[in-house]
Amino acid sequence: MTEQSAAAPPPAAAELPTPPPEAVVDLLGVLAYGELTAFERLAADAGLAPTLSDKAALGGMAVAEFGQFLRLRERLRGLGVDPESAMQPFVSAVDAFHDSTAPSNWLEGLVKAYVGDGIATDFYREVAAFVDPDTRALVLDVLEDTGHASFAVAKVQAAIAADPPVQGRLALWARRLMGEALSQAYRVAGEHAALAMLIVGGIGDLTEVGRLMARLTDAHSRRLALLGLSA
Amino acid sequence: MTEQSAAAPPPAAAELPTPPPEAVVDLLGVLAYGELTAFERLAADAGLAPTLSDKAALGGMAVAEFGQFLRLRERLRGLGVDPESAMQPFVSAVDAFHDSTAPSNWLEGLVKAYVGDGIATDFYREVAAFVDPDTRALVLDVLEDTGHASFAVAKVQAAIAADPPVQGRLALWARRLMGEALSQAYRVAGEHAALAMLIVGGIGDLTEVGRLMARLTDAHSRRLALLGLSA
Repeated sequence: MTEQSAAAPPPAAAELPTPPPEAVVDLLGVLAYGELTAFERLAADAGLAPTLSDKAALGGMAVAEFGQFLRLRERLRGLGVDPESAMQPFVSAVDAFHDSTAPSNWLEGLVKAYVGDGIATDFYREVAAFVDPDTRALVLDVLEDTGHASFAVAKVQAAIAADPPVQGRLALWARRLMGEALSQAYRVAGEHAALAMLIVGGIGDLTEVGRLMARLTDAHSRRLALLGLSA
Repeated sequence: MTEQSAAAPPPAAAELPTPPPEAVVDLLGVLAYGELTAFERLAADAGLAPTLSDKAALGGMAVAEFGQFLRLRERLRGLGVDPESAMQPFVSAVDAFHDSTAPSNWLEGLVKAYVGDGIATDFYREVAAFVDPDTRALVLDVLEDTGHASFAVAKVQAAIAADPPVQGRLALWARRLMGEALSQAYRVAGEHAALAMLIVGGIGDLTEVGRLMARLTDAHSRRLALLGLSA
């Protein structure tokens, strides 16, 4: 994967990019690994699809995530950072999230694609406010909805209409997704001081961190309502 | 997935495309489903990758297969054929092949990507000779190497050099892949008379069918030699 950068002539010392702040590398690294695993998990969840059209639709979402991964990797390389080293510190937390939330059926997969993606997107959007404009522009662009929303919402609403007891099971599932996401986010914050300080420092004080959490929780509730999963 | 074709104004009777021969629909259908599942399985096998770069490399191959699937689906729609209906008859044979050849480790996944793809490509290339020029051009283009070859060959050669006993295990695995591919190909031929007749009719007589099988087997042996897997 590194042939391209290896083949390029080494820049003169004066041209070496200024090393980016650690928090920016962390942000791009965790996002890149998040996109790479989102690709892998969505592609796997396509195996749960009830029809070939649904399989192709989830496959298309997975492919879009891979495209975002490529852009983040290119940005890391452009900053003179080895993408693999930037992603590695986040592998165990991101994998732990996915391992503890492997969908056991198609609808759980759709709810995870929509709700999980939504939580992550809201969080990264907030964090992006505190980094340099170029990184911010890339992060916001990568976070643009890749089509999960309307497809998942329509399918889940239809499934609940057809079989109302589905609602309670999926509502529990969505709550578990939020719990596991928070638990891994706290772990990442604990292990990555630079990233944690970026957020707390960018926000200014811990009261504001509480407000951020409230905004994330509110947005999560709105997504559940849209799916028809509010209690 | 069918919104686009549904939204287009219905063509006047005179503009309705002539229904394509059943064998062409079968060929495009089995290829399209093959690409869709190749995407899904390669993406899943990326989970076996030992490094993040390897994971990204296999992910890139999976994404390329999905792109080929989209082209074949578009062609089926262009012929006035519902892609899902064209693919459905081949689901059980293609799935049976993959279920019986799920790689249990990274190297088995690479050998399958390279050897399995090679067998399929050779076969479809032979069949493409007997269809109309437009279909043939698309099929040959879709079958262009998507980058499996050099990546897989280099990795497998290196693994054998580092640990020679790997050779015998992977050679057995490659033989099993060929056996399962043939077994499902015979099943498809038995269930799809139009496709079988296209091949036999295109070739002219059964002696030539034997020669085709010999060509496929020879090409398979050459690939094994390149991997360092000849007995």
